[in-house]
Amino acid sequence: MSEFFNVLPPNKALQVLLDRLDHQVEREAIPTHQALGRVTAEDITASEDLPRFPRSTMDGYSVRSSDTFGASEGMPAYLDVVGEVPMGKSPRVDLSAGQAAGAFTGGMLARGADAVVIVENTQTVDDSTIEVLRPAASGENVVQIGEDVRSGDPVLPTGHVIRAPDIGGLLALGITKVLVSKRPRVAIVSTGDELVSPGVDPGPGQIRDINTYTISALVDKAGGLPKSVAVVHDDYEAQRAAAIDGLNQGDILVFSAGSSVSSRDMTASVIASLGSPGVLVHGISLKPGKPTIVALVERKPAFGLPGNPVSASVVFDLLIRPTIYALSGCMSPPEPPSVQARLLRDIPSLAGREDYVQVRLIHSEDELTAEPVFGKSNLIYTLVRADGAVKVPLDKGGLYAGEEVKVRML
Amino acid sequence: MSEFFNVLPPNKALQVLLDRLDHQVEREAIPTHQALGRVTAEDITASEDLPRFPRSTMDGYSVRSSDTFGASEGMPAYLDVVGEVPMGKSPRVDLSAGQAAGAFTGGMLARGADAVVIVENTQTVDDSTIEVLRPAASGENVVQIGEDVRSGDPVLPTGHVIRAPDIGGLLALGITKVLVSKRPRVAIVSTGDELVSPGVDPGPGQIRDINTYTISALVDKAGGLPKSVAVVHDDYEAQRAAAIDGLNQGDILVFSAGSSVSSRDMTASVIASLGSPGVLVHGISLKPGKPTIVALVERKPAFGLPGNPVSASVVFDLLIRPTIYALSGCMSPPEPPSVQARLLRDIPSLAGREDYVQVRLIHSEDELTAEPVFGKSNLIYTLVRADGAVKVPLDKGGLYAGEEVKVRML
Repeated sequence: MSEFFNVLPPNKALQVLLDRLDHQVEREAIPTHQALGRVTAEDITASEDLPRFPRSTMDGYSVRSSDTFGASEGMPAYLDVVGEVPMGKSPRVDLSAGQAAGAFTGGMLARGADAVVIVENTQTVDDSTIEVLRPAASGENVVQIGEDVRSGDPVLPTGHVIRAPDIGGLLALGITKVLVSKRPRVAIVSTGDELVSPGVDPGPGQIRDINTYTISALVDKAGGLPKSVAVVHDDYEAQRAAAIDGLNQGDILVFSAGSSVSSRDMTASVIASLGSPGVLVHGISLKPGKPTIVALVERKPAFGLPGNPVSASVVFDLLIRPTIYALSGCMSPPEPPSVQARLLRDIPSLAGREDYVQVRLIHSEDELTAEPVFGKSNLIYTLVRADGAVKVPLDKGGLYAGEEVKVRML
Repeated sequence: MSEFFNVLPPNKALQVLLDRLDHQVEREAIPTHQALGRVTAEDITASEDLPRFPRSTMDGYSVRSSDTFGASEGMPAYLDVVGEVPMGKSPRVDLSAGQAAGAFTGGMLARGADAVVIVENTQTVDDSTIEVLRPAASGENVVQIGEDVRSGDPVLPTGHVIRAPDIGGLLALGITKVLVSKRPRVAIVSTGDELVSPGVDPGPGQIRDINTYTISALVDKAGGLPKSVAVVHDDYEAQRAAAIDGLNQGDILVFSAGSSVSSRDMTASVIASLGSPGVLVHGISLKPGKPTIVALVERKPAFGLPGNPVSASVVFDLLIRPTIYALSGCMSPPEPPSVQARLLRDIPSLAGREDYVQVRLIHSEDELTAEPVFGKSNLIYTLVRADGAVKVPLDKGGLYAGEEVKVRML
């Protein structure tokens, strides 16, 4: 059998790899509006103030605040309306004492004005006169120059995953291109004498290759670029050739192991033969997912994933997803979707091992509950029938029915 | 001012729309391996058994279980090894009493075998003989025909958002094409006399249009296809023409409102003029996001979004995202990413209104805390500087420092 010569918990296994990772993928400049989910590859600072002019935050009248001091419903301040400042235009109106000008939300103030009185706090007397019913403090209902961002302010740090509002924030400053990490290319090699393509009717003893495609989808979701390199037989030379090919094409190599002992050992030998430092971790204190290989080959991360789908899914999330982000320069990947739910049954486990148990969510009135799906980890429908997984930490002997648990959604 | 003639809580406002929605987008058949995140448009059932043959789940020997009854370390069962069943091949070996054949994880069993003895429970005596040290029950370490899925079993229901393992589950059954809803097209019309394109240096009183792009990114993330139709001035006829264009090009129309009173009223009038039933809700008991318009125009949903970025983001998530999914036939959209955190400060609110307060997450040792970002909702950097939002429910007067809250990530 495989010798698991270095059985580490998943987070330690990841750390061993990340500690040795000394490079990132290349960078590229792309249009900001297409940068959703991409990782910034430089610190971005504002090169101008936002807003550039004092903006009214409300509809009403721009005024000199001193003209409104002491105004009340009983003793309103009377102001002459001497025009308005249209949206998108600079003011053509100069306020003298006792004057006001129409102001719109987002628009400029009249020259000489330092506050906006909202329309609800005024009453129209005639075409050119209003009563102001409450005083306005200087700066009231006004966004000052640079109040959103000041020129020179840091906007986004390196290694930040760009979200929808970030796109708005960059474009507001006129930053229409952004330097990001290229999507890390993940080369996938599937192995196994039993595999046929999904479009083929399998003969006796054969099954359709699904790992290439589920891993590709996971890579895609994690911001990487999946590249299916080859589906190869349990043959050392063929696997080695595919692995070399994969390392040339990809920033990360993922071996979806043939599941027999012979081929599992073969993956480790193949990876070990590719370059140094080679295999860093072989075997993880994880269920499912123990027979996992973590390696570094001439600076590129390489993984040997268990062939069964549940293990592969768990290991991908714990090790490969964060590695894809790390290669992009992001050390804190976005939180994957999860929900809180009440566990319906006990989940037994062994202390000293991290367990991930697939669960199905049940929405009852006012409560979300999670029921373990105790399917075999070599059945893909154990995953298909589940909504997510619950983690039993390393130091716990299990979870109890009734506990509030975090379900990481599939 | 606008008359908010029908102020509803967000979920009620959504329900008013969904209750009247009587159609979905068209369907299309796409390759299964490209279907991540798409919504199934038919019930999918298995047309074959999975697996098709009894598969060994372990490496070892396929045996007749009766030959191993009573075996123990002290009294092992001796079996003749009469060959092995290679991966991906049908067995050429017939077991008679007292015989075993090599078996591999995922491989077929020898004919006549009904169980697999794992290699750890055997000892090699000589080239053709093993000792079995523990009994194997019939079916042990074997996945039976149809144990994963049986022919005729439901696989995925209509309206299901396809995840990575679902792609595996479908391909395992040879389902290489899948009927899904087309991505709902969301036509975006941005309005405002003050808007210029992000690549342009704004003149006095002008600002760069960012809403078109942030809304596009949100649409993309929600599985829709954003289509920027036009950026139009605060002119009724121009807005009406753009809206008609948008309804022709899109399955949903989103008006990113100019923020002045006049233009806000104009959006409602424009939408009301397009067809029946027209405006369903105008004004939501929501902060920020009150001045929102929800409409249905000749069976197509239309929204008037507040022009300020924080409101637009909140309203999008509460109303437009679920509408995109509903049009795809999915009434339970995937849970957006969220984290649990401890609130660092009180958040005051008014009962009778749903509040969303942007927060910044602070990772301290062993604890995640959330600090409110009390920025103005008309500043895009209020969002950029936040990690997510905390909801203050309709019936609460606020949240207290120290409370455990759910932060919905941006």
